[in-house]
Formats: sequence, C-alpha cells, structure tokens
Amino acid sequence: MTELPAHVDIREVCLRDGLQIEEPISLAAKIELLEAVVATGVREVEATAFVSPSKVPALADAEALAAELTRFDNVEFSALVASPNGAKRAIAAGLNSIEYVVSASDAHSRANVGRGTADATVAIADVARIAHDSGASVEVIVATAWDCPFDGPTASQRVLDIITAAVDLGVDRIAIADTIGTATPRRVQTLIGQVRPILAGTPLGAHFHNTRGAGLASAFAAVQAGVTRLDASVGGLGGCPFAPGASGNIATEDLVYLLRDSDIGTDVDLPKAIEAAAVAQRLVGHDLPSSLLRAGDRIIG
Amino acid sequence: MTELPAHVDIREVCLRDGLQIEEPISLAAKIELLEAVVATGVREVEATAFVSPSKVPALADAEALAAELTRFDNVEFSALVASPNGAKRAIAAGLNSIEYVVSASDAHSRANVGRGTADATVAIADVARIAHDSGASVEVIVATAWDCPFDGPTASQRVLDIITAAVDLGVDRIAIADTIGTATPRRVQTLIGQVRPILAGTPLGAHFHNTRGAGLASAFAAVQAGVTRLDASVGGLGGCPFAPGASGNIATEDLVYLLRDSDIGTDVDLPKAIEAAAVAQRLVGHDLPSSLLRAGDRIIG
Repeated sequence: MTELPAHVDIREVCLRDGLQIEEPISLAAKIELLEAVVATGVREVEATAFVSPSKVPALADAEALAAELTRFDNVEFSALVASPNGAKRAIAAGLNSIEYVVSASDAHSRANVGRGTADATVAIADVARIAHDSGASVEVIVATAWDCPFDGPTASQRVLDIITAAVDLGVDRIAIADTIGTATPRRVQTLIGQVRPILAGTPLGAHFHNTRGAGLASAFAAVQAGVTRLDASVGGLGGCPFAPGASGNIATEDLVYLLRDSDIGTDVDLPKAIEAAAVAQRLVGHDLPSSLLRAGDRIIG
Repeated sequence: MTELPAHVDIREVCLRDGLQIEEPISLAAKIELLEAVVATGVREVEATAFVSPSKVPALADAEALAAELTRFDNVEFSALVASPNGAKRAIAAGLNSIEYVVSASDAHSRANVGRGTADATVAIADVARIAHDSGASVEVIVATAWDCPFDGPTASQRVLDIITAAVDLGVDRIAIADTIGTATPRRVQTLIGQVRPILAGTPLGAHFHNTRGAGLASAFAAVQAGVTRLDASVGGLGGCPFAPGASGNIATEDLVYLLRDSDIGTDVDLPKAIEAAAVAQRLVGHDLPSSLLRAGDRIIG
C-alpha cells in the first residue's frame, strides 16, 4: 500500500459551504454551531463568505459573524470571497485568512461570479495583494476542478493554468474542489499527479462532496496521493442545489473515522464531531447525510 | 498509483442481503426486481437464502423463487446457506452455486446460527461435499471479518483459520465480509495482505456495507489490493438492523460509477442499474440510500 501520512489537517466548512444553501439560521444559532465545532479540536474553520447577500442570504451576516470570532482561541478562521471587493470586506471584518475561488470551467465561473475563468484568474493578483498588504494569507480554491455541471469534464490544463498563475502570484495555499461531487479515486490521483509538479512547495488541499457516494473514497485517494489538507463538514451539512436530497460535503465525522482506522491522525475528536453533527442537524431542522450520526462509532474493543 | 485491474465482477445481492431485513414482498415483486437486475447485464446474482423461514421471513419463499430462476439465461444464481441442511435444500431447489457463511467471531456466529466459529468451520466439509456431489460450486463467506457487533475487532488469525480450512477442503471461492459496515481502507488492505498468501489460487471476493460511509472507499481499497470480485446491491438496499436509517450494502450503481471513472470495467450497465434501484425503491416502499438514484450520472461531455 502507498505510504500514508501520519496526520491530515481538516478544515471545517459547515459554517460556510454547509449553511450556504440552507434557509438562513440566526447568528445565535451559528455561534452555537461554531462552539460545537471548535469543541471538536479542529484547528481551521471556514467561518463564512463575503459574497453578495442577495445571492447567498444564508451568509448575509458575514460581518456580524466575523465580529464574534475573537472569542475563540487556537482556531484559524477563514472566509471565502469571490472578488477583490469581497477580500476587502473580509479584511475589514478582521479575517486574516482568505479563500478566493476560481472556477476552472467558464460556464460555472460565469454562473457563479458573472465572469469567465480568465478574468477570475487575473483577479488573483488583486486579491493576493489586498490580503498580503494586511498581513492575511490567501488560498486559491479551484472550483469545478474535475467536472462542471454545465460543460461536463474540465480539461486539466485549465486547472493547471489557474494554479500556475496563483503560484506565480505568491498565494499561500492551493485547493482543488470537486464542486458537484463527481470525482472518483483514479481521476483524483491523476489530477493531483499533474498538479504536484507545478506547486513549487505551495501546500495543496482538496475539497470533496459525496453527491455520488464516492466522496470519502476520493478523499482517501487524495491522501494516498500525498494531500494532507482536506475540507469536511459536520453532519455532511451542505446539500447540492441541483440534486435535492443528495449528500453534500463529506461528513467530518465519517472522514475522521476512516482516517483514524487507517492510522492517520487528525485534530478532531470523533465523539465531539458526532455531537457537533447532531447540533447542526437540530439547527437546520432536517436529516443530515452523515453516516456516523446514525450508526455511531464501531466498538474498538 | 497501484496497478488497477481492467475488470471487476460484481455479484448483485439485493434479492438476498438486500431484502432479508425488509418486510416480505411478494414473489411477483421479487421477479420484477430480478428482471430489472438481470437487465443490468450483471452475470452473478445472489437470489435468496435457504435458512430458517421463521428467522428470515422475507426469504421464506426460497424454493418458490428458485423455481422461477430457469427463465433467465446467462446469469449464475447463488444462494446463501448457514448449515449443511440449508445446502441440501438449495441443491434440491436447483441451485448450483452455494454460499456458506461462517462468522469469524464466536458471539456473532452464535447469534446468527446458534453455534460458534469452530463448529461452523467444521461444517464446511459437509457443505462442500453436498455441493460438489451435486456438481454445484461452493463459496465460503467469512462474516464479521473485521469487526463483530458484540465482540469488537476480530483477530485476523480467526479469519485466516477459517480460510485455511476452507481452502484445504477444496471450496471454489472465498469471500470476506464487512458484516456491520465498519471496515476502512487501511484495515481492508491489511487483511487482504494476510489472506492472499493462504488462498492457494482460490478466488477471493469482498462484501462491504456503507454503514459508516466508508463502504465505497473500502471496496476500492480492496480492488487496489487485487480483489476483482465485489458484492453490491442496487439502491444500496439492505439496511442494518441495529442502526435504523443507516446505509446498507454498497449500492451497485454507485460502485459501477466509481469503477467506471477509475477505468475499471464491469458487466453492469449504469443507467440500467439506476433503473433497477428505482424498481427496488418502489417495491420496498421507502427511500434507499443510493447516491446515483438521487443525483444521476455525471455529464460525460
């Protein structure tokens, strides 16, 4: 078997990717979820997004939420942005870790942010400058890295071009995202094999959805290929708008279970992650797709 | 990446493992499901079990179902048995492929068949003789190969002892089963690495449940470790009695999707498998955990 890492860093994304398509919940509810998430021991939390409140009403309270983050120690909070203006808002709100999304497919990029991949890539420079001028770090997340919901398969060269530009501009981290939950192990490992040589030492993360059941298999394939940064969401919170009822983000607790039993450590306490998933389920008021939330941990003996 | 096989043989188990904990459905309904399953192109179907009708009422019509199997060409039908007497019933009913289950944990073995692992292992000889005397083949399925719901982790030597006995007795196939859906990739590959040297050429299959979300990841790990025979159930039919609502068997269509996109062929047509999953869902009258049944195939482009 491939050599596996001793540790994987999980970034908890339930507050942003998890909640963004839900009916808006109150700021107090978000704080409750945040407390449950921080209690898991996770070191990185994607707290919100600074995007159009009319397009993503569930995250319209980004500034108000950001003001609450100072109460938590030992956690690095990040926020997603889709434009230089969003980066300015995030910095003004006190965030010091910015994620800037660039869709590798033109059709998704236009649907998502109203401009094509090339223009969104050019804007990396502005976002990076805004972040770095304020002492913040910036990560470029390549969305639709494997497939686009409109265009089908994404040519890997489009992914590589974005990453090359981002690395040249000195961004701090890169992530590749399976935005619509179509990736599978072989395709994951193929793309990572292409991306790795052009990273020039920039850390690489990966983001998977479980929409077609292969989310955990793809995440593990990424780890086998050397990725040690993965996004996950407690409860698997985060549905897929075009496929109601389908699983969303890979569930933090399911990922931690799989990694633990593969002798890979994380900072996340499994029982606490299951508790946080239960909090998430209660707050959004519908069943979440997490497996461990239903089945529990196995008997370790 | 590990060298992957060009083809994996899928055995469809929805008629047996899928239906066994459901409310009984009519023989006509089973025939409808069988027709949908055969239409997928799958070459091996586990049709039923010859076990106690009082313990498994959903499969009490085993003889009647067996009588209907002759209408299907080009499919090998198997039946599960838990005793030499069950093997006799299966042979008398016309089956020529027998699966005999031996639980590797004593507690599960006693709960399941009323005797411990050692006694169940001794009975392999009788089951194999009954099958072979009639020209039927016999597979030994090692249940609770990774974990027992009562005893916790299963010592791998217990699995190896059963397989050694089965190989010595000339059984035709071996399978290892993750009966309660707790396996994860590393543990799968570790056990397969221990099993492989003692197989003496006997084909090895694997059987996974998705109870903790890692079913497909474990199945793919088994394929990476050289296994080319996998059980699956359309729709993911087959819940877990001790964890209501949890996913059951890995879903055939989700597995085929993952394998196809990893350049591994099967005999199963993906759209037909999704259709069969829809038939299964309609017949049992409740939502099934399949991902592709909700989300559909990706755009191939």
